[in-house]
Parts: sequence; structure tokens; C-alpha cells
Amino acid sequence: MSQAANRRIVLASRPAGPPTPENFRMEQAPVPTAPPGGVLLRTLWLSLDPYMRGRMSDAPSYAPPVQIGETMVGGTVSEVVQSDAPGFRPGDHVLGQTGWQEYAAVDLAKHPANHPGGLRVLPPGQPPSTALGILGMPGMTAYCGMLNIGQPKPGETVVVAAAAGPVGSLVGQIAKLHGARAVGIAGGPDKCAHVLGLGFDACLDHRAPDLPDRLAAACPDGVDVYFENVGGAVWDAVLPRLNPFARVPVCGLVSYYNLTEPPPGPDRTALLMRAVLTKRLLLRGFIVWDFAAQQEDFLQTVGGWLLEGKVRHREDVVSGLDAAPDAFIGMLRGANFGKMLVRVAG
Amino acid sequence: MSQAANRRIVLASRPAGPPTPENFRMEQAPVPTAPPGGVLLRTLWLSLDPYMRGRMSDAPSYAPPVQIGETMVGGTVSEVVQSDAPGFRPGDHVLGQTGWQEYAAVDLAKHPANHPGGLRVLPPGQPPSTALGILGMPGMTAYCGMLNIGQPKPGETVVVAAAAGPVGSLVGQIAKLHGARAVGIAGGPDKCAHVLGLGFDACLDHRAPDLPDRLAAACPDGVDVYFENVGGAVWDAVLPRLNPFARVPVCGLVSYYNLTEPPPGPDRTALLMRAVLTKRLLLRGFIVWDFAAQQEDFLQTVGGWLLEGKVRHREDVVSGLDAAPDAFIGMLRGANFGKMLVRVAG
Repeated sequence: MSQAANRRIVLASRPAGPPTPENFRMEQAPVPTAPPGGVLLRTLWLSLDPYMRGRMSDAPSYAPPVQIGETMVGGTVSEVVQSDAPGFRPGDHVLGQTGWQEYAAVDLAKHPANHPGGLRVLPPGQPPSTALGILGMPGMTAYCGMLNIGQPKPGETVVVAAAAGPVGSLVGQIAKLHGARAVGIAGGPDKCAHVLGLGFDACLDHRAPDLPDRLAAACPDGVDVYFENVGGAVWDAVLPRLNPFARVPVCGLVSYYNLTEPPPGPDRTALLMRAVLTKRLLLRGFIVWDFAAQQEDFLQTVGGWLLEGKVRHREDVVSGLDAAPDAFIGMLRGANFGKMLVRVAG
Repeated sequence: MSQAANRRIVLASRPAGPPTPENFRMEQAPVPTAPPGGVLLRTLWLSLDPYMRGRMSDAPSYAPPVQIGETMVGGTVSEVVQSDAPGFRPGDHVLGQTGWQEYAAVDLAKHPANHPGGLRVLPPGQPPSTALGILGMPGMTAYCGMLNIGQPKPGETVVVAAAAGPVGSLVGQIAKLHGARAVGIAGGPDKCAHVLGLGFDACLDHRAPDLPDRLAAACPDGVDVYFENVGGAVWDAVLPRLNPFARVPVCGLVSYYNLTEPPPGPDRTALLMRAVLTKRLLLRGFIVWDFAAQQEDFLQTVGGWLLEGKVRHREDVVSGLDAAPDAFIGMLRGANFGKMLVRVAG
């Protein structure tokens, strides 16, 4: 095993604007061995998520950046190859944060199991890729953001962008399960048709003109919850439609991630703050691990909905680690259709 | 009594930018009589508050604007002159919303007692003007904003502007009572000295240069609660100092009230939203009556603190209804020193 190669993708340079293939570099290293008390994992699935764009930059954020030459971070589902750790047997499927590589040795002393960023053995019956999507970080982001901040009530209107994606699609389905209206925004007619098929009451194509007018028409009673994951033109369209006491969970701003400088004026900070005041808005940023204590509740609840067919999900899969950079770059401009996954092996 | 004149100040025109004396007009009308089941009140004290600037505009807000020719709105403490209402006796002091005028007839059927905007008889021992300040709307704004949104914890740092004013001064004193550090911002050395005398740990003069640097020095551990009542340059200075999970109760934006158009660019909306996300900030707008159910708790708690000498307050009084427009205009640029009151009679 130590003769075999572990291929990994490292950050070659920091992007200025949208990432390019040159920001990534494929490297080879010997496959490591399980450390004492640890495990050796073979990556089956790698998750690609918008937050990774933030880690490529050294601007201050909620997590330290990936350093140049380091393996790109990422959630993975892997198979246990070697184990010196109780509770992990060869062949087990585990959820982890082992990044853009084919193998990873994990020291359980440094990364305790069942903690954020640690390893978790998946139940045998669960399709492993769901642990990266609807039953993983994106699903928990939607669930915890809606449960703790959005708090949709019957008859209210919930708006979410990237509605065909893994977070947005669950946000809207949770809204419906709470008796609220769900209005999605997505890129192109195919995605909009998919979103409507999930039970959303409306889905607007953000590529078509006049988004503000169409949003107003789709939300005749205004907007009570706007689940913010994109920013930009969608936020501009939603802000005037927000009702008094509207809640805005802020979990992502993908349209801003590639900005190299603030857009030209006028400076609308004052308009935003006045809306917060006069409409008594609640804006609250969060990342999923702020609600780590709710993980079991999430898995029970959404896992149950999934088994009962009350929620559905869609995956967009590319094959082979080599495909990861292009798939990631495409995802940032909305080229994916569902939860973006790389089938690394298996 | 019906022969006497009731002088009142009406909105003559809507301001473009800062209000001017020409936006107001003094009128005379006959003194009304108490309606059946109602009372006739003689105004003793008129409260001047920044929110009134919003009512002079017809821009959408949380309350309808004053119409041209209508009496300016405002909180008052009055003496009951005539009463046809149980529970109100001539000579009683009552808190109400009877506006910029010397007399007011109140129909208790339309404005029930002890409701927001309704009448409340003041306890005989209470200095009547406190019902417009520390034991009134400004005090309750500070109390409810801190209790429900700011939630200061021991060792945290709380920043508030207009710290010599009726809201800001109580915000900082509540911070201290909760074991937090209080950093005030005020206009000029006299106000800063007063704020320090209230027990704040530091007070910065916003007229001196380099507010961002001095704020950073005064908040070596960052800012956990920023009680927003001004916006503008203070908000710009505070935002980079906010700690992860900081809370921002937004109860006023006096520096924006006179804006006639958004300031020049760049547009920093994206920077603000990114800060909300990466620092997991909570921004929440409120007005005091959103927490109307907490009024008794507020009166008990802050009234108790006041009796025990745990909190102090300062009033800035002008005499005669004629003085109201100039005092109001001055208050919007910070010319007042403490809770701004007009002694209308008595």
C-alpha cells in the first residue's frame, strides 16, 4: 500500500476574481499509513461547496485560509482501509473533512470522532453521498438556518436563491412543511422546472430580465423569510419586498466571493440600515457548526423526512479527482444542477 | 375655558435635508372640551426625539407620516383639566402622545388608557418629566434593546453613540450593571466628561479626528454589542471592530435622517453583508413598542435602579412651546445635552 500513489489537489495560487484551473495543482505523494490509534481512509466522494472559495483567499473569515501548497479542504465520504482505532473497521463508510485527495491518514487523537471536522461512521443503510448533501453540511445548513433564524410560519412567504442547489432546495421544502409559501430563484428553465417539481409555489429565473418585478408578482404578500446564500442582484430585488419583522439567515454570498473590490456607488449602506430599522428586520449570519449541538436532531428529522418521501434531493456528479477543479469553478457560476459531488473512487 | 387659545405647532412643509424653522408653523385654535368619556389635558412637558424627523418625511417607515397642516406628534406629560373618564381626576399627571400643543382633548374610547399611545396616569411621587426620559420611551428603548437583542455578558464590550443622550446613557449604564465594559461616543469634551461620570469605561469624542483608531484603542478586545442609534461614520468605525457573534440592536440612524440621496460610492453593501456572514453578526431593527409587553418589567426594574441611585440621567430643558422647533433642529445635530424636553407649562 505504501508503494501506491496518493493523488491530491493543492492550492497553487490565490485567485484574483473567479478561480481558474491554474489556481490548483495535482500532486502525488506516497499513500500514508494509519497512525497509532488512527485510520487510513480511501476517498469515495468529495463534496464541492461554495465556502471553499473563501478558503482560497486570505481575507479574514470564520475559518483560516488554505495555505499555498496545502491540500484543498473539503468534506468527504471515505472507506476505512486500515484501522488502529476502536469503532472503525475496514470497509466502514465514514464522513470526514479529508479534502481533495484520494487517501488520508487521520489521527483520531487530533480529530476526535463525532465532532465537527472529525470522523463519523455512516449507518450501513444510508447512501453514502447523502452524507455530503441533504443529510450533510448543506442539508444541516438549510435545517438549522430555518429552525433557528428563519422560523417560517403558516401562510408566510419564504424566498431562497440557488433553489436547485442542495441548501436552497431543502430550504424551500422545509418552508412548505411548515405551511409557508416557497418562492425559489434559480438559473435557467430546467432548474426552475425542477424546483417547481419539488413543490415550490414559484421559481424565478434570475437570468431573465426584470427580476424585481417578477419577484414582486410572485410574492404578493411580501417576503417574511429570505434565506440569503447569494447576495448581489437577488438581495437587491428582495430587500424592498421584505415585510416588517422579516428574518434573513445569511449563510452565503456566492455572488460576492469573486469580487476584487467593492462595486461602484452610490453607497447603499444607509438604505440597507434604514430598511433594518424601519422594517425591524433580523439579519443573522451563521455557519452550520454554530449549531453543532443540533446535529442529531437534524439527522433524525431530515433523515425521517427523506425516508418518508417528504423531501427530495438531486446530485450532480463528476468522476475522478482530476475533474474537481473544473466542477468547482463551474459551480461558482451556477453550472451545477443539484449537490455537486466528485466520485473519487468506488 | 373654551374662550382660551390652544397654541399648536403644525408641519408646514416637508424638509429636504435638515429641517428648518420654516417647516413648522404655530397656529391657534380654541381650547377643546373633554369629549364624552374622555379628558381635556393641559401639556406640561413635551418630549423631543429623533424619530420625529422620520414622521416629517413621507418615506415609508414603521409609522405613518404627519400630514402637512397636522399637529406634530410627540410624547407629553400633561395635567388633567377636565375629566369625564373614570380613573382620571383633575390635577392628575398623565403620560400621552398629544403632540406639540398646549391642550389636547383625548377620547378614551379611541385611545384606551395604558396602551401604547394611550394615556397612563403617573404615580404621584414620580418627577413627571422622567416619564418622557429614563422612565419613558427613551429609557425603555435602551432597556428593551439591551435585554432582548444586545444581551451583554460579563467582560464583554458594549459601544453606544449619542452616549450623553437619554438612550445611549442608559445603554452604557445597563452594560455596566451586567458586568460589561461600556464605551461611549459623544460630541465634545463636556459630554464625554459627563459620560465618564456615569461610569462608562471610556468615551470618545466623535468630533476629534481618527475615530477608528481611537475606537480600536478603547476596545482592545473588540466589540460584542453595538447599540446602533446614529449610523454613518460611527457605524463605519465600529463594523471592523465587531467580534464574532456580536449583536447590533438598531433603534435609530440619526446621521442618515437628513440624507436626500445615498452617499457616493463605492457601494459597501457587499462588505457589510460579508461581515454579517463571516462574523456571524446579528443585526436587528426594533422600535420600543415591539416590546410593549415588557413595559411593566421596565418600569419596575429601571424605576428601582433610579430610586437606588444605580442609574442617573440628565435633562436639557427649554421653556415654552415656541422654543420647540429650534430645540428639535438643534437636537438633530447634537446640540442638546441630555434628554431634550420642552417645558410647555407648569
